Amino acid sequence: MGAGQPERPAVTRAAPKIRLFVPDGLAAGARVSLNRDQAHYLGHVMRQREGQSVLLFNGRDGEWSAVVRDIANNRCALDVGQRTRRQEAETGPWLAFAPLKKTATGVIVEKATELGAERLLPVFTRNTNSARVNVDRLAARAREAAEQSGRLTLPEVAPPVALADLLADWPGKRRLLVLDETGGGAPIARALAGLDAATDGVPPPVGFLSGPEGGFDSAELDALRKLDFVTAVGLGPRVLRAETAALAALACWQALLGAGR
Amino acid sequence: MGAGQPERPAVTRAAPKIRLFVPDGLAAGARVSLNRDQAHYLGHVMRQREGQSVLLFNGRDGEWSAVVRDIANNRCALDVGQRTRRQEAETGPWLAFAPLKKTATGVIVEKATELGAERLLPVFTRNTNSARVNVDRLAARAREAAEQSGRLTLPEVAPPVALADLLADWPGKRRLLVLDETGGGAPIARALAGLDAATDGVPPPVGFLSGPEGGFDSAELDALRKLDFVTAVGLGPRVLRAETAALAALACWQALLGAGR
Repeated sequence: MGAGQPERPAVTRAAPKIRLFVPDGLAAGARVSLNRDQAHYLGHVMRQREGQSVLLFNGRDGEWSAVVRDIANNRCALDVGQRTRRQEAETGPWLAFAPLKKTATGVIVEKATELGAERLLPVFTRNTNSARVNVDRLAARAREAAEQSGRLTLPEVAPPVALADLLADWPGKRRLLVLDETGGGAPIARALAGLDAATDGVPPPVGFLSGPEGGFDSAELDALRKLDFVTAVGLGPRVLRAETAALAALACWQALLGAGR
Repeated sequence: MGAGQPERPAVTRAAPKIRLFVPDGLAAGARVSLNRDQAHYLGHVMRQREGQSVLLFNGRDGEWSAVVRDIANNRCALDVGQRTRRQEAETGPWLAFAPLKKTATGVIVEKATELGAERLLPVFTRNTNSARVNVDRLAARAREAAEQSGRLTLPEVAPPVALADLLADWPGKRRLLVLDETGGGAPIARALAGLDAATDGVPPPVGFLSGPEGGFDSAELDALRKLDFVTAVGLGPRVLRAETAALAALACWQALLGAGR
């Protein structure tokens, strides 16, 4: 250690194990191959070598430990060992969101996955500035966040639709909480508590709808408020950026209706 | 409009007025000069011209409308007109946070300001990888977020301190909620509801402490849990990134204890 370098206490936490989502079936003794990107990540970014152990999940068979075999040049095979967690249903809120600028959309997808969203639904509203959504890129971002956050499932990233189509196809029993930035909505904690009481302790199916950078158009908001499956909710007195509003709503859902509350 | 361009409905929302924080006193008829950066922003980025109207606040005198006069080459003077909002106290939670990588630290400061944090306290923990914190840059980010979120005050950005010093100076009546990523803490909604009940409806003074990318060291967590002003809280079953945890906690505070709940 060079002179002038501040002394650092030793880090006592073990690094968490690397977790990877794979599409293949998982069972004791199975051999699984990684795709090119994952093999590159494991070998070149995380510098894993033959004999090292990682965790795998596929959304169906729980989580398994697996040992790296035969890793080289963007390919990697692993031998599946023991199951470390049983599969569980991971029901959570849906998040319909107007796509934002590229960075902010990525933030929404990553954080919504961490915060337990079950489906991510990009939706074009009147003031939406983004004309295109790269669903594959968003799905990859969601997969990474699922791997790192310990989820056993990936959230579904739906193809983008127009707001009218989202509403036409919305399941009537799933309450849609519209994040109303005009201040006209019910306080979110009250709205969530009301839903919870109505279903006698079983967390009710819920979706959130967050708007674009410029907010919802006033005619859109009027029309939304008239739908019987919609509740307009507010997130406090300050003006939140669109991505902040989406994440704040999901955080409140987790705290008030999610597992382990 | 070119052929093949999708038709876009007209945007009916007026653009929100530009808001700027200034250090000067604000009163009807006062003349205020912007600093170089703000004048550049107003003239070159937002393309404001003489005669256009913006909103000013200084953390003491409320919010005022002001008309642009004499704008040129990185200088700008404004004439203050009418008061648009009275000054209000903006008490909120404190957020002590281990600095993260540059982008994530910026996200914490921006979103914490939007979500109502009153003080931002960078704190070095054992596993903190960031050796330096640019307080001026963080304060600038907080100022921008305060301007855009409609706050009447700026959060204070404190100089960074070691965790031991933060704890030694912590006011005993302000409950410190440590975001415990090991799963050992009380569910946050329950912890916040308990604090609220204990003070008979007046929101109690609260601070959050969020850890570095690698989490708190186990000895740190043990020591924190023994302090009588500390409550360890959990944010659900998933592993959250450090910045996600900080923002989720503040969002829960706003929903459960903040104004307009």
